[in-house]
Amino acid sequence: MAKKVVVVYSGGMDSYTLLMEVKRAGVNVHAISFNYGQRHKKELEYAAHACLANTIPHKIVDMSAIGAQLLGGSSQTDQSIEVPEGHYEDETMKLTVVPNRNMIMLSLAIGYAVSIGAREVLFGAHAGDHAIYPDCRPMFVDAMSNVARIANYDPIKVLAPYIDMTKGDIAVRGLELGLDYSKSWTCYNGREKACGKCGACQERIEAIEFADIDDTTEYE
Amino acid sequence: MAKKVVVVYSGGMDSYTLLMEVKRAGVNVHAISFNYGQRHKKELEYAAHACLANTIPHKIVDMSAIGAQLLGGSSQTDQSIEVPEGHYEDETMKLTVVPNRNMIMLSLAIGYAVSIGAREVLFGAHAGDHAIYPDCRPMFVDAMSNVARIANYDPIKVLAPYIDMTKGDIAVRGLELGLDYSKSWTCYNGREKACGKCGACQERIEAIEFADIDDTTEYE
Repeated sequence: MAKKVVVVYSGGMDSYTLLMEVKRAGVNVHAISFNYGQRHKKELEYAAHACLANTIPHKIVDMSAIGAQLLGGSSQTDQSIEVPEGHYEDETMKLTVVPNRNMIMLSLAIGYAVSIGAREVLFGAHAGDHAIYPDCRPMFVDAMSNVARIANYDPIKVLAPYIDMTKGDIAVRGLELGLDYSKSWTCYNGREKACGKCGACQERIEAIEFADIDDTTEYE
Repeated sequence: MAKKVVVVYSGGMDSYTLLMEVKRAGVNVHAISFNYGQRHKKELEYAAHACLANTIPHKIVDMSAIGAQLLGGSSQTDQSIEVPEGHYEDETMKLTVVPNRNMIMLSLAIGYAVSIGAREVLFGAHAGDHAIYPDCRPMFVDAMSNVARIANYDPIKVLAPYIDMTKGDIAVRGLELGLDYSKSWTCYNGREKACGKCGACQERIEAIEFADIDDTTEYE
């Protein structure tokens, strides 16, 4: 029987690469996505579409009411805060941080893993996230794995296979897998086309250039 | 300015005692409760009532849809499984375990703490829970505190002040505080009156007897 794992899948290029890499390896992969009231819900449509196209079981967890009620202070959940333009490393990108987001999403993914008898939860944190998101650092992944090992009768592993890779490295992996990144969504603005200007778009564009992939994404 | 904390408050006697002890100490306490699709929603009504009566800000997080969709296999969320009667130590009580429940609730409580500028999250796990619930053990509390320290820009402490106390000890504390436990709800069945037979009721009855308190709870 194939190993069963849960992949936290945002619909963005990092977790899309991870999902497809695991799927191609013959693993029994279940995807889980979160609607936490983010502005860029388009990524969830892209997530659903990619799972359908690749026959991957997919849960979309609607936490939008919880996000609005509980987790204020971020441009991702608070519509009164404007999405900052510019690079991730800028101080303004801290506005895109949703309080305790990865711990919340991983906790639910771990619960789901316990329910379906999976023993691993994978997510797509990478080296480029470390500077700005405390919950993408290797020490966070280790600490989550420690608690996931003992929180239920069955120990669950939390893994971030791309934790030491840059987004450019991930794009190179995608190239090796022959992925079409127009099937993923990155932009923090939820408009018809990606803006090409927000920090997320800029990082994506740089990564795709780094891997020397033809960028099939349409930008405004 | 008074210290600000978040208390995870189920409406049961343990977290009721904790909430009131913290409130009486003059701490700026915010309560958070979870509707995770449990059968015993009555505890939430009791939680809301006690917070109103004591002017404690209170959030009830509705996770019922998520519970049903994601976290099967427990009598607390799956209506097709009967609530077992008998003592907590019985094997059958494992049926009352909701997958990864405490990690999920604490993760949301930590996110809420970050949002409102609180630095501590308290919950009412006690020594009697250790045997049956892996996520009530001291090692779980320590591991959660480790991850909460590093998951956000501001470190959050996760504390379980009653972790080494029995439920009887907690009832003694409640006696010292002059608490009326008829303001709390424990029964795992959500009927008009407490059943007095389920594991939760039995533990409660024993604890109240241990503390030599007049039990004002009405049982079926």
